[in-house]
Amino acid sequence: MDKMKLKLLYSDLKSDLDVIEKELATAVNSSSHLLNEASLHLLLAGGKRIRPVFALLSAKFGNYSIDTIKNVAVSIELIHMASLVHDDVIDDAETRRGRETVKAQWNNRVAMYTGDFLFARAIEYITVIENTYAHEVLSHTMVELCIGEIIQIEDKHFLDQTVRDYLRRIKRKTAILISASCELGAIASGADSKTIRNLKQFGYYVGMSFQIIDDILDLTSTDEQLGKPAGSDLLQGNITLPILYAKNDPVIAPLLKESLDGTISEENKHKLLREVRNSDAINKAKQISNMYLQKALNEVKQLPPSSAKKSLQNIALFMSKRKF
Amino acid sequence: MDKMKLKLLYSDLKSDLDVIEKELATAVNSSSHLLNEASLHLLLAGGKRIRPVFALLSAKFGNYSIDTIKNVAVSIELIHMASLVHDDVIDDAETRRGRETVKAQWNNRVAMYTGDFLFARAIEYITVIENTYAHEVLSHTMVELCIGEIIQIEDKHFLDQTVRDYLRRIKRKTAILISASCELGAIASGADSKTIRNLKQFGYYVGMSFQIIDDILDLTSTDEQLGKPAGSDLLQGNITLPILYAKNDPVIAPLLKESLDGTISEENKHKLLREVRNSDAINKAKQISNMYLQKALNEVKQLPPSSAKKSLQNIALFMSKRKF
Repeated sequence: MDKMKLKLLYSDLKSDLDVIEKELATAVNSSSHLLNEASLHLLLAGGKRIRPVFALLSAKFGNYSIDTIKNVAVSIELIHMASLVHDDVIDDAETRRGRETVKAQWNNRVAMYTGDFLFARAIEYITVIENTYAHEVLSHTMVELCIGEIIQIEDKHFLDQTVRDYLRRIKRKTAILISASCELGAIASGADSKTIRNLKQFGYYVGMSFQIIDDILDLTSTDEQLGKPAGSDLLQGNITLPILYAKNDPVIAPLLKESLDGTISEENKHKLLREVRNSDAINKAKQISNMYLQKALNEVKQLPPSSAKKSLQNIALFMSKRKF
Repeated sequence: MDKMKLKLLYSDLKSDLDVIEKELATAVNSSSHLLNEASLHLLLAGGKRIRPVFALLSAKFGNYSIDTIKNVAVSIELIHMASLVHDDVIDDAETRRGRETVKAQWNNRVAMYTGDFLFARAIEYITVIENTYAHEVLSHTMVELCIGEIIQIEDKHFLDQTVRDYLRRIKRKTAILISASCELGAIASGADSKTIRNLKQFGYYVGMSFQIIDDILDLTSTDEQLGKPAGSDLLQGNITLPILYAKNDPVIAPLLKESLDGTISEENKHKLLREVRNSDAINKAKQISNMYLQKALNEVKQLPPSSAKKSLQNIALFMSKRKF
């Protein structure tokens, strides 16, 4: 994603995002030297901080206080970071965002406990929010995230799954945490219940739209744009939406089988990617992503006019229309 | 530990422990088949449920309600289970309590996410407790547990550590969770602040005493009694209290070095164990454990007389005096 453009989109939040960044650095600090090294490395690797942005913007629909809302933003981002570290342990991913992963630099154990530590810190931060409903939302989100991770393992290499299986999986993998960012931002700022519901749904739909685009880009982008090999989802056995739409194509089907069996040649790998890219599966998937985007925009539309509303609309459009 | 004897010790709690057992089965249930299998396996492997027992007994010093307190007991036990699964991933332990570990039966990924799921569920359960201070205590406990795990890795194979380093490590590894069981039981039942403090401290001291005994038994018991090879802490590079007391012995020192370097022969392994067992290091360590036991009993003594008080005393004595 074009980080510069995104930064412009939320330039209003600059000083508050600086507060979040500082608080994140405080949050990952502990009495263990090794843990500090691992966490700091992860922190410096950056990321778009899109979840904190959603939390902050959502809080603008209630009584906005950075001192309160930072706890939500930090908590959510820590969970996101924790799940990235644990993903790295699992997938043997050697690079993420072009940098070495925590796992590659240290080892699996440290990565696992670093993730555990970040999860625990996330919980510590959310407990600062007085409204205990926020604690429930976050813990429920974590449960769903974990179930999602396991189901992703179960569904791997399994072509005989439905679009519905896929959608349920990305809901847990991505949409639910973005949804929680919005919902918790609204809850923590004391927004009214209709606003909370709108923002929660908005986050959910944006998350769905975003993840589908992500899965499309994994197939259509170049290695350089992705910072990892194109088609790596498929190579790892993850069945995404375009694949589900393309799987019955007479040219694609046998190549897909070879790929999932792990017997595919380098040449056929490229052929498979080329065929999927040129099939109408990509467009079909884009349509589904777009449907979610429209639903997201429909939720925002119901919110009172404000610059935060405009920002949410712009970010949603940006996330769903990005080219890489 | 002699499971039968312990069961007798808390026979008063039988029906409430049945409630906990049922709730644990509900807690580990999810929409993922794989996750259910892994969690259930873990649940059936059992364990002494000593943390739930401490939570229940501590709650007796306030307004005891099993419907409330079960949430604390389940939450704490889930965290304990989660840390066992994650330990297994780490240590490549092939057996725990004589059964195959989750890791051995499935694989590392499933074990890691099973642990994550159990952690998340634990948080879900604690949020049911209305007093938000309970949420803070639990999240803080989790943070400390994780830091402890990392420090244990840092301190491995490192002989030049102090008794204080060891004590700080076992505090995080063991004592803090037992302490939280007692404290949270008291908080959730609305006990007064002095009682909460006494129980919290009691749990801490019992935990310290217990872990020191555990570390002694790892050296002095037979493979059969432990359900794993005797001396396995040392083989994994974990430096425990008896080792710290024995490390300067002229016969032991060179063997210890070989052991930590990984160059030790089978014969010398046995010799090392034998020498440590026959040294006065074991007795010195027992004295420290006993000091913590006395401190624990001193805390209980300050509580109002009740059958729960008597039970806490008996369990503390039992845990610190056990032979294997």
